[in-house]
Amino acid sequence: MLNDSHRNQFYWDAMEPFVTGKRVIDIGAGSGLLSLMAAKLGAESVLAIEASKDMVALAQLNITRNDQSDVIRIIHDMSSNVKLKEEEKADVIVSETLGALMLGEGTLDYMADARKRLAKPGARVIPAGGAQFAMLIASPSLAQVSSVQSDCCKGFDLSAIGSLQDTGNIFFTKQWGFRLNLLPDLVEMSERIQFLEVDFQKSDRQHIPSTKTFRLTALKDGVIHAVVASWEVWSDEERTHKITTHPEDTRGAPWGFSRDMQWGQGLQLVEDFDLACKSERNTPPAPFEVKKGEELLLTVRFSVPCKQTFQFTLRRASVADAKDVRFTDKGQ
Amino acid sequence: MLNDSHRNQFYWDAMEPFVTGKRVIDIGAGSGLLSLMAAKLGAESVLAIEASKDMVALAQLNITRNDQSDVIRIIHDMSSNVKLKEEEKADVIVSETLGALMLGEGTLDYMADARKRLAKPGARVIPAGGAQFAMLIASPSLAQVSSVQSDCCKGFDLSAIGSLQDTGNIFFTKQWGFRLNLLPDLVEMSERIQFLEVDFQKSDRQHIPSTKTFRLTALKDGVIHAVVASWEVWSDEERTHKITTHPEDTRGAPWGFSRDMQWGQGLQLVEDFDLACKSERNTPPAPFEVKKGEELLLTVRFSVPCKQTFQFTLRRASVADAKDVRFTDKGQ
Repeated sequence: MLNDSHRNQFYWDAMEPFVTGKRVIDIGAGSGLLSLMAAKLGAESVLAIEASKDMVALAQLNITRNDQSDVIRIIHDMSSNVKLKEEEKADVIVSETLGALMLGEGTLDYMADARKRLAKPGARVIPAGGAQFAMLIASPSLAQVSSVQSDCCKGFDLSAIGSLQDTGNIFFTKQWGFRLNLLPDLVEMSERIQFLEVDFQKSDRQHIPSTKTFRLTALKDGVIHAVVASWEVWSDEERTHKITTHPEDTRGAPWGFSRDMQWGQGLQLVEDFDLACKSERNTPPAPFEVKKGEELLLTVRFSVPCKQTFQFTLRRASVADAKDVRFTDKGQ
Repeated sequence: MLNDSHRNQFYWDAMEPFVTGKRVIDIGAGSGLLSLMAAKLGAESVLAIEASKDMVALAQLNITRNDQSDVIRIIHDMSSNVKLKEEEKADVIVSETLGALMLGEGTLDYMADARKRLAKPGARVIPAGGAQFAMLIASPSLAQVSSVQSDCCKGFDLSAIGSLQDTGNIFFTKQWGFRLNLLPDLVEMSERIQFLEVDFQKSDRQHIPSTKTFRLTALKDGVIHAVVASWEVWSDEERTHKITTHPEDTRGAPWGFSRDMQWGQGLQLVEDFDLACKSERNTPPAPFEVKKGEELLLTVRFSVPCKQTFQFTLRRASVADAKDVRFTDKGQ
């Protein structure tokens, strides 16, 4: 992860205009890299907060080796347990606690808590904001991981194994043993839509809707195998300075392998829900076949109450419109 | 895994000459595919033994759907708990309980037990034999996963994070989030050596040595980053009919993605052990730099007492020969 030099440069550039002479708090400091950067950029003081004992020992060693012990202090605790006096509160909060899902490791809650309790009013927060995106994809080789091909098995009908296929939960590509951008048969079946935006200077979990539905159009004839979830995080409102986990952005980049190993993408397999409802227990998920131009509804449901993770449901607009009123935006 | 059509064809071909009119036992039957094959090839009876309740239900459904209920009986248990009368014992044992490491899921113990207790003397065992191989490799991008590059971090010395790098245990590539054969910078640094051979008709765990050392020659100047463990399993003594997990064999093959997702390879990161002994606690592993033609000693230590898994130690022949007598073959 430290080898994601593009990420490191992003944080350096994001901090540079704001930390000189300021008090900085680094939430989830890990190896201490962001704290070291803040110190080198001229911060008056840096408070590095880290919950892992091993990482605290490592950060302490890194701070000593890089001669920043005078500026950086480490606290071994969860940031939500830390208490500070008024005069100790920070001007700048910096954190890299982003997960395979943007908020999956709790970054929004930790940042919101730190903003309220550990920082001065109006403190700068880095990164400034982020958004989570979804896109529909097709990939027969991806579908092979958890379903059976009809030509594989000497003519036997083994399709029932597909009934074990999980189309209800989001997985992480890095745990599946491949890089999404190296699948040779990946096809983008929809535009990429932004389904969540957070302002790390203002948002907290109450601002995230519990359910949201988006209208998408199939770009091609084919079978939709999965929804890919990736994110962008930025340091400026214009989003000119950002890091992303979109598969195409890591392909071929010198730091791409490190980012895919660290974050990758969220992936949820898709079935034709309206057909599946009518089928029996051991029937495999029905393939979600679409025609180019077909209107689809993608519903995102955020976890309750934390809203850090989410699940997708994909339906045909033609079916859902007619008989189902759940597909409305209950949030925002 | 069912989509590994090459594996399926291997088992079909291996069973075809031996099962007609015979009693067959399928150890770890899973979805029931091998049992279905045996039945279709004319077996008199097939006993499918499977420990997972869900898989038993699935196999039962597959057997019913494929009209083989008269020939195949399923037992929901570990094969080591099954008891049979003399007249029920098998002529042929078939099993696909191979792991990322050939013996890693206990196949040798289960096959040896079934051979002795559940089969007639001299019963045919499929697969007939197998071998586990090792090769030294270099790959800077592989090394990036768990160590820090000097140019990544704005000039800070963060090398101490390397002290968390695990060079003592074998990992599975499929759990690391990439396919070994898609690493763009993979270099073979030694020949591939066979370090273990088993005859599934005869071997049991007592035949596996606890430690074995092999002499290898560096093929190039460079840094050795890891040892790759892959295997071959065959149905005939000449090894003309076999399945392998060598990375080059799955690259580009239609069934290659399925095999990499199912088995992949074992991988152990390498450090220069003789340098590391002299260094301090927080020093990262010393890179194992070699010159073309340099003589190396690769020691394999099998797990005690099961001998299903193993660890590697790589040393320079020049250092080890002089001062260390542990590097002898204690087995075989």
